[in-house]
This record gives sequence, C-alpha cells and structure tokens, in this order.
Amino acid sequence: MIWTIIGALAATLTMFSFIPQIHKSLSTKSVKDVSALTLFQLSLGVLLWLIYGIARRDAIIIVANAVTFVTLAILIFLYFKFGLSNGRRGGN
Amino acid sequence: MIWTIIGALAATLTMFSFIPQIHKSLSTKSVKDVSALTLFQLSLGVLLWLIYGIARRDAIIIVANAVTFVTLAILIFLYFKFGLSNGRRGGN
Repeated sequence: MIWTIIGALAATLTMFSFIPQIHKSLSTKSVKDVSALTLFQLSLGVLLWLIYGIARRDAIIIVANAVTFVTLAILIFLYFKFGLSNGRRGGN
Repeated sequence: MIWTIIGALAATLTMFSFIPQIHKSLSTKSVKDVSALTLFQLSLGVLLWLIYGIARRDAIIIVANAVTFVTLAILIFLYFKFGLSNGRRGGN
C-alpha cells in the first residue's frame, strides 16, 4: 500500500514536471537556454513508453506518458514560437 | 520481444535525455530560461521512482531513474553555478 502511494506520487510529480517550464517560457517569452535536443529526445522516449504501455495495457504508464507527451509538445511549440521570433534558434 | 526492445529503447532515450541540456548549459554558461521548479519537481519524482523500484526490486526502474537523477543533480548544480555567477537566479 505504501509503495503504491509512493509510485502514484512519483508518477504525479514527474508527469506534471514540465508545467513550471511552460509557465516560465510563457512568462519570459525566452527559450534560448532550453535544449531542443533534450525536448525532442525526451518526447520520442515518452512516445515509445506510451506505445509500450498501450501494448502492455498498463494504465499508469499510458496516463503518465500521455500527459508528459502533451506538456512536451506544448514546450516544443513554445520553443519554436519564441526561438524563431527572437531571430535565433539557440542551437542544441 | 518487440515490446521489450521498444521498452528498452524508451528507457534509454528518456534516461539520457538531459545530457544535451547539460552540454548546452556548459557551452553557453547560461541557464536563465531553464525552470528550477521543473528540475526540482522532476528530481523529487525520479527519486521516488528510484525508491519505488528498489522496493519492487525492479532493475529497469532502478537503473533508469538512478541515471536520470544523476543528470538532474548535475543540471541543478549548473543552474546554481551559472545562475548565481550571472548575478540572478532567474526565478521559477
């Protein structure tokens, strides 16, 4: 029971972990110090976790990775929106 | 078998996903657009995943989260090193 609670808390913290980054990027409209490679690599990894979870019919893996994927997609959108509007891509 | 490969690929991509961010932060020596809250929330979540993995004796969960935790610890160190040396904390 205690481990289920710790697992649920771990999943909740990690799946919403990019919300503060989205908030910060929206506030500052600057993303030049954020690594696009990290965003893309993590998105691809999370997408594979999602496929893995669907194949295994594991609801926790599906929900956690679906939420993370959506927040990462928003961040990638903001990366290009603010990165391009500042006239630079910021590199890796 | 195919799902084991997809799971292993997912784990590999996600556990090393912060290496490009470490590389970028070391190159630019600037972290002001990176959210410290995201780093702390993710670190706490990953630490709980690690504890959960140890309790469940699940090697994949242990290794994946141990590696991610180390890379996040390096990023948090860089965040304070470069954030403070630039005379600002950068907020959330």
